[in-house]
Amino acid sequence: MRLFTSPEFNSLEDVFCEQLEDLYDAEKRLTQALPKMAEAAHSEQLKQGFEHHLRQTEAQVSRLEQVFQQLGKKPQRETCDGMKGLIQEGEEFVQAKGNPDVKDAALIAAAQRVEHYEIAAYGSLKSLAHKLGHHEAARLLEATFDEEVETDQKLTQLSEQSVVPQAQHA
Amino acid sequence: MRLFTSPEFNSLEDVFCEQLEDLYDAEKRLTQALPKMAEAAHSEQLKQGFEHHLRQTEAQVSRLEQVFQQLGKKPQRETCDGMKGLIQEGEEFVQAKGNPDVKDAALIAAAQRVEHYEIAAYGSLKSLAHKLGHHEAARLLEATFDEEVETDQKLTQLSEQSVVPQAQHA
Repeated sequence: MRLFTSPEFNSLEDVFCEQLEDLYDAEKRLTQALPKMAEAAHSEQLKQGFEHHLRQTEAQVSRLEQVFQQLGKKPQRETCDGMKGLIQEGEEFVQAKGNPDVKDAALIAAAQRVEHYEIAAYGSLKSLAHKLGHHEAARLLEATFDEEVETDQKLTQLSEQSVVPQAQHA
Repeated sequence: MRLFTSPEFNSLEDVFCEQLEDLYDAEKRLTQALPKMAEAAHSEQLKQGFEHHLRQTEAQVSRLEQVFQQLGKKPQRETCDGMKGLIQEGEEFVQAKGNPDVKDAALIAAAQRVEHYEIAAYGSLKSLAHKLGHHEAARLLEATFDEEVETDQKLTQLSEQSVVPQAQHA
């Protein structure tokens, strides 16, 4: 998002580029936040989950760079206010006091908000890519979309089968 | 989210209350933002969609107040940084210049990020409510969760069948 100025949308291509730059910023921010989430996690499975998703996110950043390249553009970031807010929420949970098992339940909830942000963002972007005939870009965006959906499902599973039952004993 | 102080999570009940207050703030913010989205929308269908979702959101605020009441608590807001950021994104699109049909496509993309935030938030909260034995609260949260999923699906449909094809002619 541009700071202090409104974007100008004259074609769907403008919307696509704006969303791409926004998401590129979002993913870059996430690569900074995930190591802190991993460090704050008490459950070994959750810690490993965040570390795995960090490596996945780094690969997703590369995919976005490939999309920029395919469009003949230099990768550019635009402050993503949505992800900025979500990460701020996550950071507060990272700093939270109290029982470590309970804190894990809060960390998972924050992570799932991030995943859903990305599901919505990649969902719109891949659909626009198809409409604009950027089929190779659409394929790359679809691959990341599928990973985000899978990550969200894994977090639900981890929450229900392990983290929340553990926190109930707190 | 507490400003400048970290939350303290000693039990799942603490996480539940924190998330409830966060979501109450998020929904309240949304009732302020949706009229602006409706006013900015060019497509009559999209405008009506935002107006319908405003009425739905007001009912969802009441449901959250019922949940507070069931827990014997006064409804309380905690700044929801996630929704704050998402609404800031939406406001930039509201202010955007350019072709009104194209702008509609951007407004839908922003609205779907909001819906997914809520899907994640209500998803975590209803699952926690069940675990904590707050079954009547879980029923209320589930009703809103279903509405958010339905709204997201309607936005996808509107985007694919009407708004994006219209914007392609821009």
